[in-house]
Amino acid sequence: MAAPILVFGHKNPDNDAISAAVGYAYLKNELARRNGEDVVYEACRLGGFPPETKKILADRGIEEPRRIDGVGEGDKVILVDHNEALQSADGIEAAEIVEIVDHHRLGGLVTAQPLRFNAMPVGSTSAIVVREFGICNVELPKGLAALLLGAMLTDTVIMKSPTTTDFDRKVIAATAEYVGVDPVEYGMEIFKCRSNPAELPVEKIVNADAKEFELANGNKVYIGQFETVDLQAVLGREAEIREAIKALVAEKGYQFVLFFATDILAEGSQFIVEGDVDFVNDTFGIDATGKSVWMPGVLSRKKQVAAPILAHA
Amino acid sequence: MAAPILVFGHKNPDNDAISAAVGYAYLKNELARRNGEDVVYEACRLGGFPPETKKILADRGIEEPRRIDGVGEGDKVILVDHNEALQSADGIEAAEIVEIVDHHRLGGLVTAQPLRFNAMPVGSTSAIVVREFGICNVELPKGLAALLLGAMLTDTVIMKSPTTTDFDRKVIAATAEYVGVDPVEYGMEIFKCRSNPAELPVEKIVNADAKEFELANGNKVYIGQFETVDLQAVLGREAEIREAIKALVAEKGYQFVLFFATDILAEGSQFIVEGDVDFVNDTFGIDATGKSVWMPGVLSRKKQVAAPILAHA
Repeated sequence: MAAPILVFGHKNPDNDAISAAVGYAYLKNELARRNGEDVVYEACRLGGFPPETKKILADRGIEEPRRIDGVGEGDKVILVDHNEALQSADGIEAAEIVEIVDHHRLGGLVTAQPLRFNAMPVGSTSAIVVREFGICNVELPKGLAALLLGAMLTDTVIMKSPTTTDFDRKVIAATAEYVGVDPVEYGMEIFKCRSNPAELPVEKIVNADAKEFELANGNKVYIGQFETVDLQAVLGREAEIREAIKALVAEKGYQFVLFFATDILAEGSQFIVEGDVDFVNDTFGIDATGKSVWMPGVLSRKKQVAAPILAHA
Repeated sequence: MAAPILVFGHKNPDNDAISAAVGYAYLKNELARRNGEDVVYEACRLGGFPPETKKILADRGIEEPRRIDGVGEGDKVILVDHNEALQSADGIEAAEIVEIVDHHRLGGLVTAQPLRFNAMPVGSTSAIVVREFGICNVELPKGLAALLLGAMLTDTVIMKSPTTTDFDRKVIAATAEYVGVDPVEYGMEIFKCRSNPAELPVEKIVNADAKEFELANGNKVYIGQFETVDLQAVLGREAEIREAIKALVAEKGYQFVLFFATDILAEGSQFIVEGDVDFVNDTFGIDATGKSVWMPGVLSRKKQVAAPILAHA
């Protein structure tokens, strides 16, 4: 038996990155069994668990995916929930990417060989994974359905994010019915099992769901999001957060670091920026120099934060 | 009604590039009608017709797609059978790519927004398009099925190319049965309706199915393939072909131009190279300096020619 094909989401994994990897590895193993192929797929993760993911895995008796820190020559991998080398495992250049399942913009990856690339402009990668179960006619176990439903709900901020499409609403409704829960109640429960931001180490807040991006000028930036039902607890720690992201700018040479805390009840985000704050000010027409700024309606990093920054000349 | 969304394959279109565009535009229009969306998709092409495409379109009473030479700001486009800017319409950087259907390696495209990317490592884009009709439960008209079957057969060299997968064989068998033809006989007929290479202008031979690639060093190369049932007629014109590709090296500054004539009956290809011939010699362990070289078993540009060249340090 050859080494397993590793299935993983991006660094600083969120609930969708880990859940989609677990779901897709299960599907691929079922398909391999059906086709009599001597190959095994293993779900992995490139970082610690978000608290909600750990809880749902435990509640549903699903094995925790193994943490890996890098890949290398000879490894075959499937990327889920990302397609940019910067956001992937260390050593990804040397590995063979055999498949990608994603819902983000194209990030410039080059491969020597053709591969399966299954991307859709929808609210979560987990919704694409659920669709594949249907297309391939593979039965989705109830526990796994609950895990994937949780990821669809956190990634779409309980369908409030502007990234939510009719496709997401349909898949969420059908999966919630199959699992036997109300999607909005189930989503609120999941958000509540996140840790109290007043008690978390500041590094956990800043890096909970953060990604590197490369601007057209070649400089790197770091954009972190922290979704919460208790924005005041996060803002009570603004000075600490500002110190932490200032240190990241200095250490990693980022053009800027933009951290934003998203209040999923009030439906908006508070921006905290260090480094080249003018770039962010110009992009959004705000003044975030030395102070945090409330951005009503901003819920999606991808569509409302990263896209305008990457499009900004 | 907004401007149509343009659906097109690569420059120097082959049978698959045009047929897949026609098939996919039809499918998208049917889906838009079903969903009550006020949008129209128009199949286009970035070059002249291969003779077999023109004949099948006429035989089956399918409207010829319009030729376009470029796109620009404000255009929405769907790329089929390619995903590299170099092989796409002039001005593609300014257009909005809303979808990609392809079976080639990833070529480094960057977008600001997420999009539908449907790539599979299979023998033709037309096979992926036929699969989508099934997934979306849209009836495939018989004439369009004959067009897409022709493209599946030319792109896989009647299933002899090493790019041919079990998936291709299944889709070809099912489509041939639906159309009511024997796939091998139908494929041979299609190859025979290509023009006699003794009579074609040399530019038509050299550019019939040629693509630009960018090496890791940033230099561009041009790789052209001419599939034929009459290799001797092509080789009788080697001196002319050599002059034509030498002129391309000089005009376009290519590191090299590799032209190869593929004999689909003998199942191999004859290489003719100008420019940095040593690079090609090193890649394949041959001596093509000043003379053409027979490469037994080489039928696929993608898998057996472009991939080793792009992987060559």
